[in-house]
Amino acid sequence: MTGSPFAALVDWGTSNFRLWIVDAGGGVLAERQSDDGMGRLERDRFGAVLEGHLQALSAPADLRVVIAGMAGARSGWLEAAYVETPAPLEGLFRHAVTPEHSGRRVFILPGVCQRTAGAEDVMRGEETQLAGAIESGVASGLFCLPGTHSKWAELDAGMVRGFTTAMTGELFQLLSRQSILRLSVPEDVRAEADHPSFAAGVSEAAEPHFSLTTRLFSIRAEGLLGAADGAAAAARLSGLLIGAEVAAMRRRYSPAGDVHIIGTGALASLYTRALALSGIRAVALDGGELVRKGLFAAARSLVSAS
Amino acid sequence: MTGSPFAALVDWGTSNFRLWIVDAGGGVLAERQSDDGMGRLERDRFGAVLEGHLQALSAPADLRVVIAGMAGARSGWLEAAYVETPAPLEGLFRHAVTPEHSGRRVFILPGVCQRTAGAEDVMRGEETQLAGAIESGVASGLFCLPGTHSKWAELDAGMVRGFTTAMTGELFQLLSRQSILRLSVPEDVRAEADHPSFAAGVSEAAEPHFSLTTRLFSIRAEGLLGAADGAAAAARLSGLLIGAEVAAMRRRYSPAGDVHIIGTGALASLYTRALALSGIRAVALDGGELVRKGLFAAARSLVSAS
Repeated sequence: MTGSPFAALVDWGTSNFRLWIVDAGGGVLAERQSDDGMGRLERDRFGAVLEGHLQALSAPADLRVVIAGMAGARSGWLEAAYVETPAPLEGLFRHAVTPEHSGRRVFILPGVCQRTAGAEDVMRGEETQLAGAIESGVASGLFCLPGTHSKWAELDAGMVRGFTTAMTGELFQLLSRQSILRLSVPEDVRAEADHPSFAAGVSEAAEPHFSLTTRLFSIRAEGLLGAADGAAAAARLSGLLIGAEVAAMRRRYSPAGDVHIIGTGALASLYTRALALSGIRAVALDGGELVRKGLFAAARSLVSAS
Repeated sequence: MTGSPFAALVDWGTSNFRLWIVDAGGGVLAERQSDDGMGRLERDRFGAVLEGHLQALSAPADLRVVIAGMAGARSGWLEAAYVETPAPLEGLFRHAVTPEHSGRRVFILPGVCQRTAGAEDVMRGEETQLAGAIESGVASGLFCLPGTHSKWAELDAGMVRGFTTAMTGELFQLLSRQSILRLSVPEDVRAEADHPSFAAGVSEAAEPHFSLTTRLFSIRAEGLLGAADGAAAAARLSGLLIGAEVAAMRRRYSPAGDVHIIGTGALASLYTRALALSGIRAVALDGGELVRKGLFAAARSLVSAS
């Protein structure tokens, strides 16, 4: 490692662990990734796992550590209570918790919750990506974070006004791999954004009285009736699910400008296409870079405040 | 066995096998049930399995056998091609197929399909229950058959005009047992029709712009925020799913009178309650009795026609 280490930044999710050591300007000096996710760890193992990764990068013994994500969940290392919406993201660090850990200064950032009746929701990790977007100069607008549980968040001058989780990714997995639809969606076929059945699914889901549960089985029926192949079935299932999500989020947040998609790769392409079909332009941001920037901003604030 | 056997009637589903031997008036002389469902059988085993059950009831060697259900699927014993909607149910027997089977006369009834663009659908087994309803004097109206894959069918003077499958039961199973919601819905807790959270879920799902995928996660969030216990979570999940189904079917079929629910027990109670909350009265019919009556009607027609 060259340069002077300022902080260790950790994105500690359910299934992933990612660590960066950065200098005082936020420049990356060293990094490391593993599958030591919170979901695999007993509470008393977090400290040792963190220490192992820090030592593998020869981190100084007194280097401060800032963590975001599921490590702060009730079933994680130490619960960092949610900050309620409307939540100013630059102040998150004030609510960090500090687990007992062999003298090293460790800070776990809180998640954000929404207690609005009829719109109860929680996030943990995504708020730090959003804080990273603010660091990158995007402090207002509608953000879409595709994933197992997609999040949509409305930012206004650095404040999370409201957000919504959609179980789209998990539903696609369960339906395509475990429901009757697995007989129509081959395991090795991915949904393609440019398949006509994807567009058809998205536009069907945008209809005023679209009902997901009563339309899913038609994917199986089309297969049995010889009206669709596996690629069409995968694309249509994805189109119906992502289309339903986009339609609901358009109604809820009425985006005035572009939607900022945090994420890259195949999933981001599907969302970009679904948004385009709805007349909305998507701008892609790199999720890994954003969480690092959000963590760095918190580390900087923690130093200034101490 | 006393009385003179007229036919053996078989309801052969994916996971269940049910056999009745009836006299010429439809009276049950003997019956038998097992888990020898089509899903567990290789194609060349159907004949031997059937024969074993018939012999266990001492059925005469020349007794005719009429079968409904998944035994007639492409992956069953012998495919009985679907009859298309609008499908007159009293004529189903004309489309029965006869597998090669050691001299015994075996008839497998067809399913019904709907090729209407945007409403492709299939049923196999439920059409015979509907034929049984006609035998019982109910030849017109809207029918709801709750289950893993619920069916709603519109009958008009003995004819299936249209029908719709909803994947409600399978979604409840997948979501409550395998998704993130399993952490909020305890395995030993059932959804109760009289829980206030069931009614709340049904009425939320009836709202004009209800979006299932973006509301499911609130069940988990409510648990994390201390706003709901396991019984409330199970009832609300069930209410959202069944409510979404009922709302969509109301819009599609605009039922003028009562809805006929084919089924009994806990699931039928949930549907009855959801319909009542929507101002619709439900009348319950026994599914096992209906399939036997439908099979008997087909057996009688096969004899008259031969």
